[in-house]
Amino acid sequence: MDTPRKLAAEFVGTLLLLATVVGSGIMGETLAGGNDAIALLGNTVATGAILVVIITIFGPVSGAHFNPAVTFVFALRREIGVGLALAYVAVQVVGGLAGTLLAHGMFDMELLQTSSKARSSGGQWLAEGVATFGLLAAILGTLRVRPNAVAAMVGLYITAGYWFTASTSFANPAVTVARSFTDTFSGILPAHAPAFIVAQFVGAAVAMVLFRWFDRRA
Amino acid sequence: MDTPRKLAAEFVGTLLLLATVVGSGIMGETLAGGNDAIALLGNTVATGAILVVIITIFGPVSGAHFNPAVTFVFALRREIGVGLALAYVAVQVVGGLAGTLLAHGMFDMELLQTSSKARSSGGQWLAEGVATFGLLAAILGTLRVRPNAVAAMVGLYITAGYWFTASTSFANPAVTVARSFTDTFSGILPAHAPAFIVAQFVGAAVAMVLFRWFDRRA
Amino acid sequence: MDTPRKLAAEFVGTLLLLATVVGSGIMGETLAGGNDAIALLGNTVATGAILVVIITIFGPVSGAHFNPAVTFVFALRREIGVGLALAYVAVQVVGGLAGTLLAHGMFDMELLQTSSKARSSGGQWLAEGVATFGLLAAILGTLRVRPNAVAAMVGLYITAGYWFTASTSFANPAVTVARSFTDTFSGILPAHAPAFIVAQFVGAAVAMVLFRWFDRRA
Amino acid sequence: MDTPRKLAAEFVGTLLLLATVVGSGIMGETLAGGNDAIALLGNTVATGAILVVIITIFGPVSGAHFNPAVTFVFALRREIGVGLALAYVAVQVVGGLAGTLLAHGMFDMELLQTSSKARSSGGQWLAEGVATFGLLAAILGTLRVRPNAVAAMVGLYITAGYWFTASTSFANPAVTVARSFTDTFSGILPAHAPAFIVAQFVGAAVAMVLFRWFDRRA
Repeated sequence: MDTPRKLAAEFVGTLLLLATVVGSGIMGETLAGGNDAIALLGNTVATGAILVVIITIFGPVSGAHFNPAVTFVFALRREIGVGLALAYVAVQVVGGLAGTLLAHGMFDMELLQTSSKARSSGGQWLAEGVATFGLLAAILGTLRVRPNAVAAMVGLYITAGYWFTASTSFANPAVTVARSFTDTFSGILPAHAPAFIVAQFVGAAVAMVLFRWFDRRA
Repeated sequence: MDTPRKLAAEFVGTLLLLATVVGSGIMGETLAGGNDAIALLGNTVATGAILVVIITIFGPVSGAHFNPAVTFVFALRREIGVGLALAYVAVQVVGGLAGTLLAHGMFDMELLQTSSKARSSGGQWLAEGVATFGLLAAILGTLRVRPNAVAAMVGLYITAGYWFTASTSFANPAVTVARSFTDTFSGILPAHAPAFIVAQFVGAAVAMVLFRWFDRRA
Repeated sequence: MDTPRKLAAEFVGTLLLLATVVGSGIMGETLAGGNDAIALLGNTVATGAILVVIITIFGPVSGAHFNPAVTFVFALRREIGVGLALAYVAVQVVGGLAGTLLAHGMFDMELLQTSSKARSSGGQWLAEGVATFGLLAAILGTLRVRPNAVAAMVGLYITAGYWFTASTSFANPAVTVARSFTDTFSGILPAHAPAFIVAQFVGAAVAMVLFRWFDRRA
Repeated sequence: MDTPRKLAAEFVGTLLLLATVVGSGIMGETLAGGNDAIALLGNTVATGAILVVIITIFGPVSGAHFNPAVTFVFALRREIGVGLALAYVAVQVVGGLAGTLLAHGMFDMELLQTSSKARSSGGQWLAEGVATFGLLAAILGTLRVRPNAVAAMVGLYITAGYWFTASTSFANPAVTVARSFTDTFSGILPAHAPAFIVAQFVGAAVAMVLFRWFDRRA
């Protein structure tokens, strides 16, 4: 597939991902009457489901990264060139922002917002490292044995991650940037985003090292 | 398969779809004690699940459209003739109405109702456009790479759509008409249905254009 | 596989099915603090999941009927002999009762109970007819095109059925008998069981006729 | 695969399993406002999902036991040597403890805790026997007919088990030990752990006998 179509797939996929993460958070918060566990259930079900769909339909076009940490690992593994990788990251960030705005538009809210939700602690940073380690482990571990199942494993992994990590598994720098621009359920204070992103790249790198070891001939 | 059996499959499938959408909405509303997020969770789980089943079992008979926007796109792609397409749409609308009445009958309610639930705003129309764009993207994007997975992807997509779009993803003109005839959880004021339907066809057409581009030889 | 092992598989499978239906109902009712929609969500998730498992593991042994209405249809289709069919039904009923008692035992309750929950109305009977029609449609419709997917389709269908049918889809005479012996969430007054069972056989027969038509050469 | 990598896979897999079981319990308990059914739903969804992922990605490395009762059955079936089996069990216990501590760390809690939650009754012990019988039945029954589906069946089985067994299906001695070291939603009083573990080995052995019979030539 040529570059414009790859970038279009990354853009539309990341846009749908963020529209879902942010939109289902708004829906949950609006309907759940203050019970955040119910809101998180709706948020989880929607995010897990859309991930399976967008990875299935855009995977054959762009590889369906939708995540700078994923693109980073594939660049380190030399499965994508540096120039294209940088273009992917740019398009992911812009697509994520567009998805956040789209969610606001669908719910008749102010399009431009910034989050006031604090997410900052040693535990949260550890959680983002673990979350992204697990995401990359799910991707790399499935790719080597059942490539057709990657979409399902990513959806299932994030379903779990929303509940077992204290940060609810952003696990994605583009998602982190985009979620700093919504003052709703899924938001993160912009000042707290950089530490999340650092933890995400560290977690991704650790997963890459582990699976490189598993893949090495004995 | 001959035409009568195709039309029968479209009728029974759309009937089961609406019986599920409307029926699970009634069940949720009845049991949830006013917490609409819990009602929507039940509505979501039921609708996503039945879609996978009816597309799997009726797909080999009729193609399992159950949706005039889907039939419209397949007619534009010349995968179904105009005459048969019109018959499909007629049967989908009648089947949807029958499913709504069946739901009312199962819950011992008045069979004939009209909805009083307002669903009208720029955001809602945008939501229906996005919802139907995503539905057709899920169908066309999966058909080209893993046709056996279409049923699962549609079920997962609507699972997400119920939560991330402000309108809860009707994404189907026959469903929209049928839901204007129930004064329960899933209803829509009849006067607000036409704008939903316009947005749905627009969203479907945009998805068709995008995947036509992806399918074009470089 | 020889008859003793077939009957053992039907017994253990129906026992696990009822232990799940009744047990998860008790768990839901106990924890949900009076919100029956949340209890039903837990009941639904557990029942849908166990069905996929027991059909997958016992299907190659006995065919994994666990349901007299299913055995009845396979007998009419001459895929099982009358003598073995009657033995299946007997074992399903006994296994279902054993599963109900097992659920009571696990929750430290009185083993022998009878239900006091009324489930009787025209709507409820219609619901059981529709529920069992849909269940057999899911089985027969999937068997003819993707036999490996029958387990998943039955699990998904019952997941939907718990929510869209007013009766929560017993859809199984052995289950109906067994559930009349528990005075918990999933129970049914024994006097109301026979009408459910009649409706179930009618629904099953209608599905058989429909798919016989679909299967006939044009 | 060589032994160090097998043990690493067992360690990381069991760590992720316990991080999920304990972490999602904490998340559920924190957000659900006292409604334990909602907390259990989140706990269930997360645990079921992570099991599918870790069995898929670590299965090709170590067999993905993560459970001394599973290793015990495979040792009895002579599919793993006694020495390696003992090493597996040791690593599973240590990995489980590490996962519990990781969950505490992510939620900024005291790392070292012991549970004060009583789980002791005849019903609970019966429940653990049934739970582990069912888990091994799901594994052995799927392995013989659709080995690729084992991950999904284990995830689905535990999803059901969390609801239908009175003990919420620990079904795993390493999990039981690890959960005695958390004073949160998923904990178990250390003094009550041994009876659970005995019941688990008994249930596993019964399943092994049943499927040995199914596998014997007629």
